Amino acid sequence: MSKEFYVNNLNVNDEIADCFMVKGASIKVGANHKTYFDVTLCDRSGDINGKKWDVDETEGANLSKLSDGDFVWVKATVSEWNGIKQLRIIKVKRIDSSSEGLDMQDYIKAAPEPSDSMYAFILDKAQDIKDEGLKKVCIDALEENKDRLMYYPGAMRNHHAEYGGLLYHTKRMLDMGLRACSVYTDLDPDWVICGVIMHDMEKLNEIEANELGISSGYTVKGNLLGHIVLGTIRMEERAKKAGLSEEKTVMLQHMILAHHYEPEYGSPVRPMFPEAELLHYLDMLDAKMFDFEAALEGVDGGHFSERVRTLDNRMLYKPSFRKDK
Amino acid sequence: MSKEFYVNNLNVNDEIADCFMVKGASIKVGANHKTYFDVTLCDRSGDINGKKWDVDETEGANLSKLSDGDFVWVKATVSEWNGIKQLRIIKVKRIDSSSEGLDMQDYIKAAPEPSDSMYAFILDKAQDIKDEGLKKVCIDALEENKDRLMYYPGAMRNHHAEYGGLLYHTKRMLDMGLRACSVYTDLDPDWVICGVIMHDMEKLNEIEANELGISSGYTVKGNLLGHIVLGTIRMEERAKKAGLSEEKTVMLQHMILAHHYEPEYGSPVRPMFPEAELLHYLDMLDAKMFDFEAALEGVDGGHFSERVRTLDNRMLYKPSFRKDK
Amino acid sequence: MSKEFYVNNLNVNDEIADCFMVKGASIKVGANHKTYFDVTLCDRSGDINGKKWDVDETEGANLSKLSDGDFVWVKATVSEWNGIKQLRIIKVKRIDSSSEGLDMQDYIKAAPEPSDSMYAFILDKAQDIKDEGLKKVCIDALEENKDRLMYYPGAMRNHHAEYGGLLYHTKRMLDMGLRACSVYTDLDPDWVICGVIMHDMEKLNEIEANELGISSGYTVKGNLLGHIVLGTIRMEERAKKAGLSEEKTVMLQHMILAHHYEPEYGSPVRPMFPEAELLHYLDMLDAKMFDFEAALEGVDGGHFSERVRTLDNRMLYKPSFRKDK
Amino acid sequence: MSKEFYVNNLNVNDEIADCFMVKGASIKVGANHKTYFDVTLCDRSGDINGKKWDVDETEGANLSKLSDGDFVWVKATVSEWNGIKQLRIIKVKRIDSSSEGLDMQDYIKAAPEPSDSMYAFILDKAQDIKDEGLKKVCIDALEENKDRLMYYPGAMRNHHAEYGGLLYHTKRMLDMGLRACSVYTDLDPDWVICGVIMHDMEKLNEIEANELGISSGYTVKGNLLGHIVLGTIRMEERAKKAGLSEEKTVMLQHMILAHHYEPEYGSPVRPMFPEAELLHYLDMLDAKMFDFEAALEGVDGGHFSERVRTLDNRMLYKPSFRKDK
Amino acid sequence: MSKEFYVNNLNVNDEIADCFMVKGASIKVGANHKTYFDVTLCDRSGDINGKKWDVDETEGANLSKLSDGDFVWVKATVSEWNGIKQLRIIKVKRIDSSSEGLDMQDYIKAAPEPSDSMYAFILDKAQDIKDEGLKKVCIDALEENKDRLMYYPGAMRNHHAEYGGLLYHTKRMLDMGLRACSVYTDLDPDWVICGVIMHDMEKLNEIEANELGISSGYTVKGNLLGHIVLGTIRMEERAKKAGLSEEKTVMLQHMILAHHYEPEYGSPVRPMFPEAELLHYLDMLDAKMFDFEAALEGVDGGHFSERVRTLDNRMLYKPSFRKDK
Amino acid sequence: MSKEFYVNNLNVNDEIADCFMVKGASIKVGANHKTYFDVTLCDRSGDINGKKWDVDETEGANLSKLSDGDFVWVKATVSEWNGIKQLRIIKVKRIDSSSEGLDMQDYIKAAPEPSDSMYAFILDKAQDIKDEGLKKVCIDALEENKDRLMYYPGAMRNHHAEYGGLLYHTKRMLDMGLRACSVYTDLDPDWVICGVIMHDMEKLNEIEANELGISSGYTVKGNLLGHIVLGTIRMEERAKKAGLSEEKTVMLQHMILAHHYEPEYGSPVRPMFPEAELLHYLDMLDAKMFDFEAALEGVDGGHFSERVRTLDNRMLYKPSFRKDK
Repeated sequence: MSKEFYVNNLNVNDEIADCFMVKGASIKVGANHKTYFDVTLCDRSGDINGKKWDVDETEGANLSKLSDGDFVWVKATVSEWNGIKQLRIIKVKRIDSSSEGLDMQDYIKAAPEPSDSMYAFILDKAQDIKDEGLKKVCIDALEENKDRLMYYPGAMRNHHAEYGGLLYHTKRMLDMGLRACSVYTDLDPDWVICGVIMHDMEKLNEIEANELGISSGYTVKGNLLGHIVLGTIRMEERAKKAGLSEEKTVMLQHMILAHHYEPEYGSPVRPMFPEAELLHYLDMLDAKMFDFEAALEGVDGGHFSERVRTLDNRMLYKPSFRKDK
Repeated sequence: MSKEFYVNNLNVNDEIADCFMVKGASIKVGANHKTYFDVTLCDRSGDINGKKWDVDETEGANLSKLSDGDFVWVKATVSEWNGIKQLRIIKVKRIDSSSEGLDMQDYIKAAPEPSDSMYAFILDKAQDIKDEGLKKVCIDALEENKDRLMYYPGAMRNHHAEYGGLLYHTKRMLDMGLRACSVYTDLDPDWVICGVIMHDMEKLNEIEANELGISSGYTVKGNLLGHIVLGTIRMEERAKKAGLSEEKTVMLQHMILAHHYEPEYGSPVRPMFPEAELLHYLDMLDAKMFDFEAALEGVDGGHFSERVRTLDNRMLYKPSFRKDK
Repeated sequence: MSKEFYVNNLNVNDEIADCFMVKGASIKVGANHKTYFDVTLCDRSGDINGKKWDVDETEGANLSKLSDGDFVWVKATVSEWNGIKQLRIIKVKRIDSSSEGLDMQDYIKAAPEPSDSMYAFILDKAQDIKDEGLKKVCIDALEENKDRLMYYPGAMRNHHAEYGGLLYHTKRMLDMGLRACSVYTDLDPDWVICGVIMHDMEKLNEIEANELGISSGYTVKGNLLGHIVLGTIRMEERAKKAGLSEEKTVMLQHMILAHHYEPEYGSPVRPMFPEAELLHYLDMLDAKMFDFEAALEGVDGGHFSERVRTLDNRMLYKPSFRKDK
Repeated sequence: MSKEFYVNNLNVNDEIADCFMVKGASIKVGANHKTYFDVTLCDRSGDINGKKWDVDETEGANLSKLSDGDFVWVKATVSEWNGIKQLRIIKVKRIDSSSEGLDMQDYIKAAPEPSDSMYAFILDKAQDIKDEGLKKVCIDALEENKDRLMYYPGAMRNHHAEYGGLLYHTKRMLDMGLRACSVYTDLDPDWVICGVIMHDMEKLNEIEANELGISSGYTVKGNLLGHIVLGTIRMEERAKKAGLSEEKTVMLQHMILAHHYEPEYGSPVRPMFPEAELLHYLDMLDAKMFDFEAALEGVDGGHFSERVRTLDNRMLYKPSFRKDK
Repeated sequence: MSKEFYVNNLNVNDEIADCFMVKGASIKVGANHKTYFDVTLCDRSGDINGKKWDVDETEGANLSKLSDGDFVWVKATVSEWNGIKQLRIIKVKRIDSSSEGLDMQDYIKAAPEPSDSMYAFILDKAQDIKDEGLKKVCIDALEENKDRLMYYPGAMRNHHAEYGGLLYHTKRMLDMGLRACSVYTDLDPDWVICGVIMHDMEKLNEIEANELGISSGYTVKGNLLGHIVLGTIRMEERAKKAGLSEEKTVMLQHMILAHHYEPEYGSPVRPMFPEAELLHYLDMLDAKMFDFEAALEGVDGGHFSERVRTLDNRMLYKPSFRKDK
Repeated sequence: MSKEFYVNNLNVNDEIADCFMVKGASIKVGANHKTYFDVTLCDRSGDINGKKWDVDETEGANLSKLSDGDFVWVKATVSEWNGIKQLRIIKVKRIDSSSEGLDMQDYIKAAPEPSDSMYAFILDKAQDIKDEGLKKVCIDALEENKDRLMYYPGAMRNHHAEYGGLLYHTKRMLDMGLRACSVYTDLDPDWVICGVIMHDMEKLNEIEANELGISSGYTVKGNLLGHIVLGTIRMEERAKKAGLSEEKTVMLQHMILAHHYEPEYGSPVRPMFPEAELLHYLDMLDAKMFDFEAALEGVDGGHFSERVRTLDNRMLYKPSFRKDK
């Protein structure tokens, strides 16, 4: 079923009938002592609140079972209160997204490049590694995790928390890292490629995420150890399998361990060779560019964004002469 | 050969002949353009500087080969300059400590309890662990490393940097930890015992040390990863061998990982269950008590020690009424 | 009057009649412009919200005089809204807790040991002090403050903020401190006992608390000076009375002054002798064990607690195999 | 005996004979294996190194008894080595400063105003206090400590470490504080005067200093408690004697306790009323002005001073157009 | 039209008719599904909430156009709900403050001295500057900005955020600075006067403020550069025009640049000459005295204020014996 | 005169005669009371100490006039003491580097690319700027400063403190910045190019440096304001001349001002648009890569470097399999 109405395009008084993803549904009682259904409906373009009045006991029982990520078909009219749009829901029913043939891209935030082409780019660079051991470590990890990489987000929230976000983060860092090797010619591309590919791989086991790339929290070992240490532990076995020497194994573990740089961000050691140092800056730069792009999206030229918590509470500025692409 | 003269008992004008351990030997040229041999000689009681004048080329060549930890037999007279004692060396020759039957206890700083009785205490507590997996992890690690545990220091410098220091640190923490279980009865002794025994085990692979318990530095992986992460990595394999569940494995890794508590001291996570929290305080308390004892040794009652770098530069006070044991 | 209904055991549709303690009572006006009485009722097992509708002017005037810590007898039915239980109050009247013979233990959070046995334990250890001056300082302080010690909380909020909390904190630290003296034999038990007993004594004058151990804030001198400095000042006079030498007086004052260790937690100096150092760790450990126990209470095995503000915002983990006692 | 030669006026080849104060004297042995006497000689204008060669055993024994603060009469010629002046001592003998009638002002660094006039200024302001209790506290403290105030330095080193330094610091703060009361008319001059006079009074018992205002270190209670807490403790008794109310006593103690403002500089609380806040800034400003004056003394116009450790390692600038007074 | 009713003097059941300034007006829908007008009305004495029920569509459209700083004439009765006063508005209409001849002093928070006398004080001190260049810099800046100085606040929020606040801040600092020159006689009054007058001048271009001294935010260059750097940049041109030497120009720029002292408060360098150091302390002291006065206003004797965010979250104390002026 | 002997190629017992640059020359007196000339001689390959004995008064007077950066011709033999090579100087005389036709590249540390080709690269990129104003700003600055850019170091010490270092730093950042624009396509290359070229331009007026690229310290305005603020001030005039709008002027000033990112490193604001953010990371990365290359130069494979102060005291690791280029 192809989607017709997107949240950010609704106009007051529109009468609509379409599918949405559920985020935060509950049964409430109004000031008039009547029961109503209150829900946030979303698609990839944004969120809107909806209310259905006159909910009887049976319907209330059903609707109260809806949880985040479920899909509903909704018939409603668009109203407005104090300038904020709202849906007055007439009918609502739960649907099964697959049997209805919904296209997930309509409903979720996703990286701007297709997962398979990002995966192909990364695999291709892994193939270019000259050191056979490092190459095997990367290719094994990529192939083993291919399925989950297709959709995994790069974080629970903040930067790259989106469908395919982990691949997108890895891909842009890799692109940038190889260019850095052309400027800083002392760098060994093998280690840059391998470091970038492996540095966040254990986010797959730190974060719980569904196939929409939406995270619902951390795993037990994600909380108790974190992806940096999980990656370091896991590398022991990967390296053994790839026949890496102890020195190279320890160096790869060090790259993963040191890539957050500051102890208070989870790195117990700071980088001790140039490729490990570069890895940190590639990671930072990609995260920052992502955050800047996201924060400035929708800001008018000549104005500042809201304060951005992940950027030390900065407001960002979009110049008056900057044209959005 | 039994030792007769100890550094801290020498009197001016004594004529002595005895063995000492070498620390910092070099050939120097004096203001009078003459070559002399300059050395620090030590035994378990302390250090003293010695000089041998009139060193010819052959002797100089031989003496310049002496390195730290070697032993020499020395004939000398005790002189004094501005209140500091010095040896005027008459004869000096290198000796082989084992063929001469030197008792190492005369020469090196060592824990106050015999290594084998400390080891037995620890092994005994490991035997008390009720959880079969945790017990096996501990006993395997103790047995595998028994030889090195006998002499390994607890640190490269600072607290427990002495022969048997690692065992002594572990033993006193274990003693204290079990008493804590009597006061805080929610604590599970199994995890306290196992956590204490395993928390510093990989210092064996972080620090390079000889059989006198003297450390000469860190290993490559000690520098690149550190004993906390090494211990966390190594636990993966140990736990597998002992048949531990994933949950218990991750919990043990967490205890090791979190025991330094603060990120800037190498722990990327803080303790998340009570036994892990206790482990940190046992570790701190034992280190502090060691440092206090060491710093106050030799301080007169009613006076302050020098400033102690490892104790935030504090001066410590020994009360006038405190009698040394 | 013995209590029949506890908050954490109420079931929907129960009709109850029992006494509760009041926390936060007010007269409000509803969306329907009618006046109602809104109150939180509590006993030692927890809190529940209650509402009484149709409050006339006279009744409203009476109910609005209820303040925290007062007691009411309530007749009500248990209802539920969105899964949260609530009392629909039919009758409510203020009662006098003593004339009704209420057992306070039914209504307030209290340390798990009886105050008099904890007091006896502490007094007993004070009697063991060999130094006559130190002994007198402790016994005088204990006897002088016996009445208030029976109920005083250990803090305004956070750890040991409960009936008898100050005694409980002192008692467990003392128990642990004496065990530490068996492991670290350089420690002088006299100073450990005296330090523990006196370290928080002036919380009695820093915090305002009623006889239920519930604190309503800080005193003027609690705010302007704090219990650490109050204890240091007060020791001057206590020590004089006990005939302590200046050195011992200053040492006791130092123990009190240094026991928070870090300047930013109120200690202008760091510990300078071993018993003062130990005191800090006993204090920390007891606070941490208390906080861990409290935070993990009610958490299911295999799950994490909420983030705990006083523990650097950590989530704590309860293992799946941990059985609650 | 009036002084003729000042250190900062000596010229190469001068032959001098005069008295100096000793700072750092020792017997050393030269590269030529000969014994010599090495000493730093000082007067209020500065320091110079001197050496006496050919010291025999008896003379060496005598000279080695000289300690800091002793006085010697010296006959010497001024030489120069690599641009640094030095005394080649021909004769040196210890003298008794009082029997020789030395004027201490020639030898030691002292505040620029006479102690008795500074004392009179301060006492005069204390007399102006309207609150009888506060007035009595100040006057009692001033009279009790009058003798030592005449010479006590304001610090062991750093700002106001000079003869009369404590009075000078107090006097200038008082002068400035009263002017502040004219600008900020909400301030109560009584509390400003009393706070300033009492804030550093216990430096008299924190620092050990001789009658030349030269400090040799801290007292035991200076180390264990510090002057801030000593002043707070001592105020208890002073206030009682002066009949102050508890509120006023606690407020005075708070002023003393809070005057360093930051926990890491020894204040466990921050100022909570305006006069306490002002006291901190008066203290800071006076210390800073002292340090600036001292650091810029002798710097040429258009140049920077050395880096000043107590001023966050700043270099200070003296403008090219600034004329020294 | 002279004002009759002030917010802080209204009594329940008063019937009033008067003008107020609007802060936060909106149209809301009540629990009864009826539309009402909700507004905060203010004058110089404080704020009060008002509600007008039964707002029809036309009136709602008009009232919804009211924005902060507009004026309304209101007829209302004073009611009370749970102890908080409220206006039940009967009639409300927008008015033009100038055509109605409102006296702004009745409506806005303003510095306690008239702007023209503060300006005259400052100009007078500028006239006293002996250095012709510095004098010209000050007088030019004062004259150029005279109009805006009359009303500009000293900050967007926090200290001196009031009508004439920038002048008041400058005036009191200048008064205090000149008194400091009498105590610290090494200071050059020319630089103190000029530094004080110029240090915050570019707040005029950092902050957007209307003629009531109410700020609505920062300018683009205020956000991107800040008043400290704006002042430093602007001084380049001012100094050139006044014929200042490069040294003096750089020194003035340094004073502006360094006056916040700490890098994290916007000063990339710390003061390097005494007048620059003093400038910082004058600034701090004036801000603190302002904040203390404001926070303690209305606090009863013997009580503490709320926690004050800008004063490190301190509660301030007003002594029981302090009489308000 | 072409150079024959380089410091890092000298062998013991070589007899050499060649030119060197002087660094730290002085006349000293030996233990034997004889005067000698002590000097550090350097060329681009490193440093060596030399001594000339038997210096008479006239020669001493001449040699003592040598200052850093002067050139001498020296005849000497290479000796060795305790493994450190030294020159025993037989003859030494000052020479004029230009009249002797010395090639400076033999004597000083220089960037690995010729200054003119780096300058050409940078100018070329400036020509590519599409915005006419930004282009003019860059080209004017480059042309105006061309002479000094040829030799200026990038810092007084630390990274890029070498001949042509400022150009080298700018050139590599520019190269990297343009590649970043290909990955992060939201970035506007005009602002990246202009930001990079202008960000450190005022180092030319902050640092004093001679034509060999050797810095002798900071200028007065370098100390009082620093290159970041100097660049921000200077941009005002440059932008005006280039006809830039106020918005663009402020944005360029912001880029310069924010490029150190952290307040404690001199940036009073953090970057507020993406190109300013990138500029910081380009700057950091280039500095780090420089420091890593420098620290690892000469370290053997499989070993660690010394601790590097500018890299948070890290030791760096060179893998055993890394081949130097």
